[in-house]
Amino acid sequence: MKTIDLNCDMGEAFGVYQYGADEEIISFISSANIACGWHGGDPLVMQARVKLCKQHGVAVGAHPGFPDMMGFGRRNMTCSPAEIYSYTIYQTGALYAFAKSQGLPLSHFKAHGNMYNMAVKDYSLARAMAEAVYAFDKELVFVAMPNTEMSRAGQEVGLKVAYEVFADRAYRADGTLVPRTEPGAVFHEVEQAISRIVQLVEDGTLTAVDGTVLQMPGDTICIHGDTPGAAGYAKAVKEQLEQRGIKIQSMG
Amino acid sequence: MKTIDLNCDMGEAFGVYQYGADEEIISFISSANIACGWHGGDPLVMQARVKLCKQHGVAVGAHPGFPDMMGFGRRNMTCSPAEIYSYTIYQTGALYAFAKSQGLPLSHFKAHGNMYNMAVKDYSLARAMAEAVYAFDKELVFVAMPNTEMSRAGQEVGLKVAYEVFADRAYRADGTLVPRTEPGAVFHEVEQAISRIVQLVEDGTLTAVDGTVLQMPGDTICIHGDTPGAAGYAKAVKEQLEQRGIKIQSMG
Amino acid sequence: MKTIDLNCDMGEAFGVYQYGADEEIISFISSANIACGWHGGDPLVMQARVKLCKQHGVAVGAHPGFPDMMGFGRRNMTCSPAEIYSYTIYQTGALYAFAKSQGLPLSHFKAHGNMYNMAVKDYSLARAMAEAVYAFDKELVFVAMPNTEMSRAGQEVGLKVAYEVFADRAYRADGTLVPRTEPGAVFHEVEQAISRIVQLVEDGTLTAVDGTVLQMPGDTICIHGDTPGAAGYAKAVKEQLEQRGIKIQSMG
Amino acid sequence: MKTIDLNCDMGEAFGVYQYGADEEIISFISSANIACGWHGGDPLVMQARVKLCKQHGVAVGAHPGFPDMMGFGRRNMTCSPAEIYSYTIYQTGALYAFAKSQGLPLSHFKAHGNMYNMAVKDYSLARAMAEAVYAFDKELVFVAMPNTEMSRAGQEVGLKVAYEVFADRAYRADGTLVPRTEPGAVFHEVEQAISRIVQLVEDGTLTAVDGTVLQMPGDTICIHGDTPGAAGYAKAVKEQLEQRGIKIQSMG
Repeated sequence: MKTIDLNCDMGEAFGVYQYGADEEIISFISSANIACGWHGGDPLVMQARVKLCKQHGVAVGAHPGFPDMMGFGRRNMTCSPAEIYSYTIYQTGALYAFAKSQGLPLSHFKAHGNMYNMAVKDYSLARAMAEAVYAFDKELVFVAMPNTEMSRAGQEVGLKVAYEVFADRAYRADGTLVPRTEPGAVFHEVEQAISRIVQLVEDGTLTAVDGTVLQMPGDTICIHGDTPGAAGYAKAVKEQLEQRGIKIQSMG
Repeated sequence: MKTIDLNCDMGEAFGVYQYGADEEIISFISSANIACGWHGGDPLVMQARVKLCKQHGVAVGAHPGFPDMMGFGRRNMTCSPAEIYSYTIYQTGALYAFAKSQGLPLSHFKAHGNMYNMAVKDYSLARAMAEAVYAFDKELVFVAMPNTEMSRAGQEVGLKVAYEVFADRAYRADGTLVPRTEPGAVFHEVEQAISRIVQLVEDGTLTAVDGTVLQMPGDTICIHGDTPGAAGYAKAVKEQLEQRGIKIQSMG
Repeated sequence: MKTIDLNCDMGEAFGVYQYGADEEIISFISSANIACGWHGGDPLVMQARVKLCKQHGVAVGAHPGFPDMMGFGRRNMTCSPAEIYSYTIYQTGALYAFAKSQGLPLSHFKAHGNMYNMAVKDYSLARAMAEAVYAFDKELVFVAMPNTEMSRAGQEVGLKVAYEVFADRAYRADGTLVPRTEPGAVFHEVEQAISRIVQLVEDGTLTAVDGTVLQMPGDTICIHGDTPGAAGYAKAVKEQLEQRGIKIQSMG
Repeated sequence: MKTIDLNCDMGEAFGVYQYGADEEIISFISSANIACGWHGGDPLVMQARVKLCKQHGVAVGAHPGFPDMMGFGRRNMTCSPAEIYSYTIYQTGALYAFAKSQGLPLSHFKAHGNMYNMAVKDYSLARAMAEAVYAFDKELVFVAMPNTEMSRAGQEVGLKVAYEVFADRAYRADGTLVPRTEPGAVFHEVEQAISRIVQLVEDGTLTAVDGTVLQMPGDTICIHGDTPGAAGYAKAVKEQLEQRGIKIQSMG
């Protein structure tokens, strides 16, 4: 039986501030990337989201970001590899402690926002991040975009890499994403996303905007949790994949 | 052979800001309480201080505080037990990750500043803190002032409690500290502190300001690292205790 | 013609995080207390909310709080009078700059959350706050609960004090609020609140829970903006007061 | 009589953390750029440094930086012009309030660290910053490196620009600084710096590393306050300039 993982960023609420639709979406995913209190999240939220994962049998992952709550980790910060290494250790350890204290393993690691984006392109940062994950726990799955500096760093360090695909985003023939600022960058219809996931799971390919059929390894699909209708989207993806005989299963 | 632990708060530097004299004092202590980035410290500092402990064979402990860098964790914040629980898990996990990634165990837990002071007096907060430590790792040693709500909570939760004594501070007949605002609260001469430690280790007692001889369990002596001459003080304490046949040994 | 001011806390959104219903409520109030980036708010939000006030002819006030975003300024912090003085200057100045740069005057000052609550009871903190406001601009209106240390400090420092009444809250015969934890503390029906405001404006009295009729100075009514239905409540209050011939007018 | 301004960054201490040698250096400068609590500084420090300026007759300026205390504002953050605009208003207003409440005018504005460096090269950011300063108070002097996007933006917006020269730094023939990573980037001898300042004041030129004599407007010289021996350096600069008949006078 074919399988795929559905991952979603969670725990990005902070203090009195709500964010996302974690309690609804949790029913439809297999892996949660839980924010670690730097770009979003706080200890009470982390505690609650790990509990939510436990109740729903969803794999718990760390989701570290830049120290920039005001910018939600979505601005570049020119951090050094040593800084990225230590930020990765810190945030991953903090989330690990919530998982361990509730009797759950930590399954994976996925960087947030521009910490992710910078690691896609910059090998030294990606390498520092991967080495930190490996130094902390070499069994953690390292979520990375395929064919990038990020996935290369994960592999070279010796981590298990889960290739992440954005089913609702258009890709160029070179395997990079069409920027959101360009028309056609996002597939807004859930059916489009689902047919792309099915193609990915069954054929190991994605079709680029120019029609090129890309060989594309894909282990986990990113479900955005902070857009209107996110829960309905997640539900439709899960149900229709299962109807097509594809099992939703965590990447670990 | 009699033994005693000497513990010192470390890693309270932050960004460009220096603090304390960690590199000098590390030679004279057996346990380091490393700040976790909330009241002081940051990931680069945590990384460096764990390495320093490794080089010197000093036990690594977590030293969490209130989320109040501006006040250095020295102001009361009316946190709920649930908040204290989650803050304890978060910070302890963050420091644990630096220890684990460098191949060191985490040995102990000591709260900082007013998180310590509030737990001395408030059982519900002390209990939340102790339960968090236990939930994360029940083998961690819980540093607490003897005969307080804090030590009681540690014991009732089932943790190994290390009783902490402030050798340079005067105690009242009821076992509480003479407040710093009162005359005679602090022994400024190192000889005084040493003779008190010797009495503690050999007789299990401390003499209060009114001459009462208090039964006082004592496993670890707090060495202040942020006062002028702290390293010289630490050196004198270590050397003179060793000359008197008392071994300096970590509490774990 | 009788007048009353309706004030509402605004600008408590932060980064990606939404909060309250400022754009809706702004139509129904005469004074906005804009958060200053410590317990809530950020510079982009402050800029936008001052603009919103300008568009709607609403008076702009500073709404400083404790440095505790994680707790939304709703936890006590044992700050010294010198700290409160400097925090007041800092935050008031920051908001003033947004007003001045858009050509608006700063009209008033209202402390947030537990900085407000502590100043109600602690004269030294209230005095420090009032002195800071006076030192910065002695024409600013100082919003305070009547018959408290806060209002006394404002008067003694020489500020114009606007007495704030919570029309949806029950008062005791001694003029203090019935705590929210007790039954009957909150009037949930808008009609109740309105009849209390009418009584306040026309007779200068409020009826306490035990039936005592309290003499109560009242210049401004607090409209809560972060509860469900807040905009509808604000609209009803404004409209019904106007129907009864009471004009909504800023406190300055 | 020829005059020059000596400016120095001040008030970068934070909470328990000391930084720089403000109390010593203040005697030798004419303008202080006071940190505003984002990259360094806090309200108590701002209050104290404004008082120090008042005691010594030194002009008070705002010294805003990126929201990155952990990196001391020395890391690039990809902020938008709207963000830079609002960050400038916020921090300038906060410092203004400390000056006003102590009866001092705010004299100038100088951005800190990488907020300065980015504005040197990026016109849209420099323009946003200059517009914010102008919107708040069009009389403020805008400190900028000559022949950069920063000085151009200040001029085009209509601000009085004070051209800042780094007397202890080598310049290239194109008027840019030799990067610190290159040999000869810094003049470590105070005599060298002084002779360069004298040349600047008397001839309006600086000699570049290749011997080219650059026409260079210079109104204010940056005195670094956070290097060992900074106070001695400042003292020597002031005394020797005065001996050569050059008066130290604030830029406003």
